[in-house]
Amino acid sequence: MLKGGAFKTECHILSIMTDISDFLAEKAKSIDERILKYLPEKFDEKYLEWAFGKARYAYDVKTLQKALSGPIWDFLKRGGKRWRPAMFLLVAEAMGGDIEKMADFVVVPELAHNGSIMVDDIEDMSEMRRGKPCTHNIYGIDVAINAGNLMYFLPFLVFIKNRDSFEKDILIRAYETFSQEMIIIHLGQAMDIWWHKGNDEGLTEERYLQMCAYKTGTLARLSAKLAAILSGGTPEQIEKIGKMAEAIGVGFQIQDDILSASGKEFMEKKGFGDDITEGKRTLIVIHAMKTLEPEDGKRLKEILNMHTRDPKLMQEALDLLKKGGSVEYAREFAKKMVSEAWEEANPVIPDSSAKEKLKSFVDYLITRKI
Amino acid sequence: MLKGGAFKTECHILSIMTDISDFLAEKAKSIDERILKYLPEKFDEKYLEWAFGKARYAYDVKTLQKALSGPIWDFLKRGGKRWRPAMFLLVAEAMGGDIEKMADFVVVPELAHNGSIMVDDIEDMSEMRRGKPCTHNIYGIDVAINAGNLMYFLPFLVFIKNRDSFEKDILIRAYETFSQEMIIIHLGQAMDIWWHKGNDEGLTEERYLQMCAYKTGTLARLSAKLAAILSGGTPEQIEKIGKMAEAIGVGFQIQDDILSASGKEFMEKKGFGDDITEGKRTLIVIHAMKTLEPEDGKRLKEILNMHTRDPKLMQEALDLLKKGGSVEYAREFAKKMVSEAWEEANPVIPDSSAKEKLKSFVDYLITRKI
Repeated sequence: MLKGGAFKTECHILSIMTDISDFLAEKAKSIDERILKYLPEKFDEKYLEWAFGKARYAYDVKTLQKALSGPIWDFLKRGGKRWRPAMFLLVAEAMGGDIEKMADFVVVPELAHNGSIMVDDIEDMSEMRRGKPCTHNIYGIDVAINAGNLMYFLPFLVFIKNRDSFEKDILIRAYETFSQEMIIIHLGQAMDIWWHKGNDEGLTEERYLQMCAYKTGTLARLSAKLAAILSGGTPEQIEKIGKMAEAIGVGFQIQDDILSASGKEFMEKKGFGDDITEGKRTLIVIHAMKTLEPEDGKRLKEILNMHTRDPKLMQEALDLLKKGGSVEYAREFAKKMVSEAWEEANPVIPDSSAKEKLKSFVDYLITRKI
Repeated sequence: MLKGGAFKTECHILSIMTDISDFLAEKAKSIDERILKYLPEKFDEKYLEWAFGKARYAYDVKTLQKALSGPIWDFLKRGGKRWRPAMFLLVAEAMGGDIEKMADFVVVPELAHNGSIMVDDIEDMSEMRRGKPCTHNIYGIDVAINAGNLMYFLPFLVFIKNRDSFEKDILIRAYETFSQEMIIIHLGQAMDIWWHKGNDEGLTEERYLQMCAYKTGTLARLSAKLAAILSGGTPEQIEKIGKMAEAIGVGFQIQDDILSASGKEFMEKKGFGDDITEGKRTLIVIHAMKTLEPEDGKRLKEILNMHTRDPKLMQEALDLLKKGGSVEYAREFAKKMVSEAWEEANPVIPDSSAKEKLKSFVDYLITRKI
């Protein structure tokens, strides 16, 4: 009985979780070193000249450091899983890419991702992020917008500095991919913002998923596609691996929503439950609205539109989400989506131990508890 | 006497002003048509698919239009001189570039420029822009940040859609230039913001000019460099033409500061005098601080740090700026800077009527009264 199916699976998942947690922890340090190369904590003339060229007049080194590196590293040091650059490395390895040649590119999705959170937090007027006040609450909205936006553009420096390491076609393809994803992420955000404001008449499950694919899926898709492109992948490989990563990104978001709607520990740690306060239309909410009795649905919408922090009301909303089985629905949906996308990408990725790890990584991301 | 020197010069300037105003007005329409191609006022499935690819799930056309095209066109329609794309076209013509092939690229500096104002206005918490409330005061900070940021990235779509019209080296060079300028503009903004907040201990004229070169000079430099690159210019041509355009951009800013500090009509029209309220450290202010009697300098700083809208105090500050001859100093400085940069670029641009027009354009931008 001890070796029975359920127990074995649980054990297997636990071992995956440990492996991948270790893998992420191990990679995080070298990823941060690459970020430091492009954005050191302490600025000096030498760095500024290397990165941005000789000053025509004179740099104000201290001011630039205080207004850019300061808030950005205050943010980066708060943690984060660095799973997008880790996935970049795994895809590159699985595709037989030259890791040393490509390694600087881990900076691209990670900086862009953190920039997008910093900017998101301003747009949502959030208060806390990773256990500390949001950047705009420490440095002001002006500094936070500007620093966040620099994090969107600084990744291009990686392209410029590694210009000669890649064939021109590959480099152009990489530019196009990063640029296009950075356009698309603003479409996702546009939908999310507009719906938040209560303009959700036209919101359907399909449109919600499109928003996720464009918002949360974007930087995962970017990481994987960039790795596939720089490894010299074929268009078919790039496309399918990108789609798989997008599914992971969306699945990750749905998992966040699920944990936020059910996991007490997660809620406290992340300072969440915010989803209810923000009035977020998650997949769970959309499903609930469709399946709950009209009266319950109306009540749920009412609470979401209150933008309340009253724990009693928040609990009432959470109970309604569970009542219609919507949390369970979202969980199954995410699993199915990711496993289908994996099945599609599977044949185009050559077998290797890196591929095995990539698969574990996929499992980890959508079964994680925190 | 009627044909005497001063009168002739005045006449000459007037005729330049009329010519160039006509030129700008004539170009504005075709520039806007190009922008409409990449960002139509009315979205439909066809446009969205062309620009961003087929939706994996489903587009919410109306929401995207309302949250992106709506606020962006509300802003673009308020006017603006469109002088950056006009300069792009003049440089391209002077360099013998294939205008039809390059024409879509007018979108690049114009969208980025308007995006940067929209974002600037949020960062400065400005109230009015071009006679109407700022975008964030109409649509909310969230929509405004996101729309402004899209205007930074949408220009990349021009690169993607015109991929096959240029040699790979040229295309890569163009990507690098746009990316680098978009990084640099955030450095300029970082300095400006930080100093505004009263942290101006290290502020010198040299550093101020660096900020201008990075903030105001950037999109002018980008316009000219992009035109030179896409016309197949040599590195020397690209560099010198870029430097000339940067000087124009900086000169344009100094001219704005001068008009704001002296022209009543300009102040009313632009809703300015804001420079005093914002506590802006302009070239004029920096010069005044250095040359005024200590007591006067102290008083000027005091008023600038008040962020006041009291007309009496604002007038007092304006009087102090004039007292030390600082407005005159800035005027001379800008003229000298632009004419030196022109002299440097002059030998690398082949003679043509387009070059003549470019020269008139330079004169116009720094002698304009509004």
